[in-house]
Amino acid sequence: MNKLAIGVDLGGTNLRIAAVDDQGTLVEKVTLGTKVSLGRDHVIDDMCNAIQHLSDKYKSSAQLLGIGIGVPGIIDNETGLLRESPNLPGWAEYPVRAEIERRLKTIVILENDANVAAFGEKWLGAAKEYSDMAMLTLGTGVGGGLVLRNAIWHGANGMAGEFGHTTVEPEGHPCGCGNIGCLEQYASATAVVRMAKETIAKNPASALAGAAHIDAEFNAKSIYNLAIQGDEDAKRIFRYVGRCLGIVLSTLVNSLNLPIYVIGGGVSSAWEAFSPSIFEELRRRALVYAATSPHEGVGSNEGASAHVKAGPGHKTVITRALLGSDAGLFGAARLPMVSESLR
Amino acid sequence: MNKLAIGVDLGGTNLRIAAVDDQGTLVEKVTLGTKVSLGRDHVIDDMCNAIQHLSDKYKSSAQLLGIGIGVPGIIDNETGLLRESPNLPGWAEYPVRAEIERRLKTIVILENDANVAAFGEKWLGAAKEYSDMAMLTLGTGVGGGLVLRNAIWHGANGMAGEFGHTTVEPEGHPCGCGNIGCLEQYASATAVVRMAKETIAKNPASALAGAAHIDAEFNAKSIYNLAIQGDEDAKRIFRYVGRCLGIVLSTLVNSLNLPIYVIGGGVSSAWEAFSPSIFEELRRRALVYAATSPHEGVGSNEGASAHVKAGPGHKTVITRALLGSDAGLFGAARLPMVSESLR
Repeated sequence: MNKLAIGVDLGGTNLRIAAVDDQGTLVEKVTLGTKVSLGRDHVIDDMCNAIQHLSDKYKSSAQLLGIGIGVPGIIDNETGLLRESPNLPGWAEYPVRAEIERRLKTIVILENDANVAAFGEKWLGAAKEYSDMAMLTLGTGVGGGLVLRNAIWHGANGMAGEFGHTTVEPEGHPCGCGNIGCLEQYASATAVVRMAKETIAKNPASALAGAAHIDAEFNAKSIYNLAIQGDEDAKRIFRYVGRCLGIVLSTLVNSLNLPIYVIGGGVSSAWEAFSPSIFEELRRRALVYAATSPHEGVGSNEGASAHVKAGPGHKTVITRALLGSDAGLFGAARLPMVSESLR
Repeated sequence: MNKLAIGVDLGGTNLRIAAVDDQGTLVEKVTLGTKVSLGRDHVIDDMCNAIQHLSDKYKSSAQLLGIGIGVPGIIDNETGLLRESPNLPGWAEYPVRAEIERRLKTIVILENDANVAAFGEKWLGAAKEYSDMAMLTLGTGVGGGLVLRNAIWHGANGMAGEFGHTTVEPEGHPCGCGNIGCLEQYASATAVVRMAKETIAKNPASALAGAAHIDAEFNAKSIYNLAIQGDEDAKRIFRYVGRCLGIVLSTLVNSLNLPIYVIGGGVSSAWEAFSPSIFEELRRRALVYAATSPHEGVGSNEGASAHVKAGPGHKTVITRALLGSDAGLFGAARLPMVSESLR
């Protein structure tokens, strides 16, 4: 009999639920809007109905191992409480795990969304061959996840992997977290737009200013489009994104010496524009990277072919995520499978 | 029958060999000079003679578990080769482990000196109650060691824990490693003296200049003495040391969320002068530190009573090392004990 788990990606905008088997096949995926405005109970109802639907549909043909849920926020791993979640107002201190376990009578594992994305890429994506990896998710903010010895590394307070709040500019831009000069202020979609607006303010005649004027949505993608068309201002912004990522990645390489670091999230679509600066910083700032990677040549883990998967070896690999927005769903579904294998 | 291991601290200046029992009692310690100038074989002879002496002396009363050796340099953990060691010229690519195993017919484990210091503090020192910890050793350079789940974390190439080469000033002072703005350039004894000399160059009438003039040795300790006498220039230098340490520690807190970080090495004697700046940076730059520590009060893990050991909890502890220069000896002796328990 097949083994199946249900993965949930509970975002502030989308609520996605998938049945995934233990071989990593996505059996069925349901995508709903997260109706945050209708309140917490409404969202929980939607989620539980979809889970119940999938579970009823497959229970005769597969053994259901449990449910994994990726949530944007701080989770108390011991109690299953969602401590804090800016994207899910009204959910703070809510016992998400206990409530869903009560309703569906099965094991529920709650996990931070950046952690499940890392876990998904580690199971089936860019870091498939590795037992140790880190992932940075460049979205509205910058999330991070760390997998050591095949398990998500939570740290003493469940708050490990917050790479987005690493200082890259000691006297830099203020961050919502209270710090200044955090990576998130230089490598998120929000930061890309802010840096473009700073450029526009200095040079109202720039192509960036023109694009902002005619493009109502003017977002990180608009700026990337300018960069690939050769606009120097836009290119410079992405070079700076890469530089800051390179500084943080160098620190991770020097501290943890992991074999692979995966870059995902929406901004990672601009890989061609920012990745050369990452490698430039790494060659200079990370002993191990400089020692193990240059002789591998540009084609192997730098530039356009960075998608190529490298097996576990002595090389330090920096690469793009492969699973896109499904990483979190796969990672969430993996949680009860791993938990089961530990029992 | 007691179980005993022999720990060796093979430094560029001193060669120290100790018999330590599995309860952590230092049974006997032999201190020799490392006669680097007489060549590698001479040093190996001295080391093996001292080990043989201790082993003969205690073999009737205790079971010898093996030998652990802390070495300043890069070690290949698989082959036991000393890959590179600036302080031990002529030892590069030398099969230290195989040679000593051949001579003494017992298990030999080679380990980087900063890693054994961390392992010693984790076994018997400041991080005794913890299974996860990091240590920064502020000496001529800045070394680092990382212990995760009670084991030294080596990383993919055996080069994890290189916190000294973390970038703190992206456009800062050049470092011997090829990077610029490394922590080592702001928090080592060498850096303290360099920063003092920079101040003297700018202000030849300063108290620092006066001290440098009359003190032939003019070192980090001289500058610390001025700082505790209230000299503003000297105090500012140590505040900068603390600021840079605080930035790197914040990154470690945000990335790994370890419960404890230990600061050792000669410069850590100046704890009173630099630690307030560490805590200031941490409160601002590390989410978890800010969330878990302020309400604990100043007395618990900040300031003068930072020596007080705290049990494992949810608090982030930054504290001084407790074992001084014996940390490496204890950590080295621990290696074969742990290795034995894994067999």
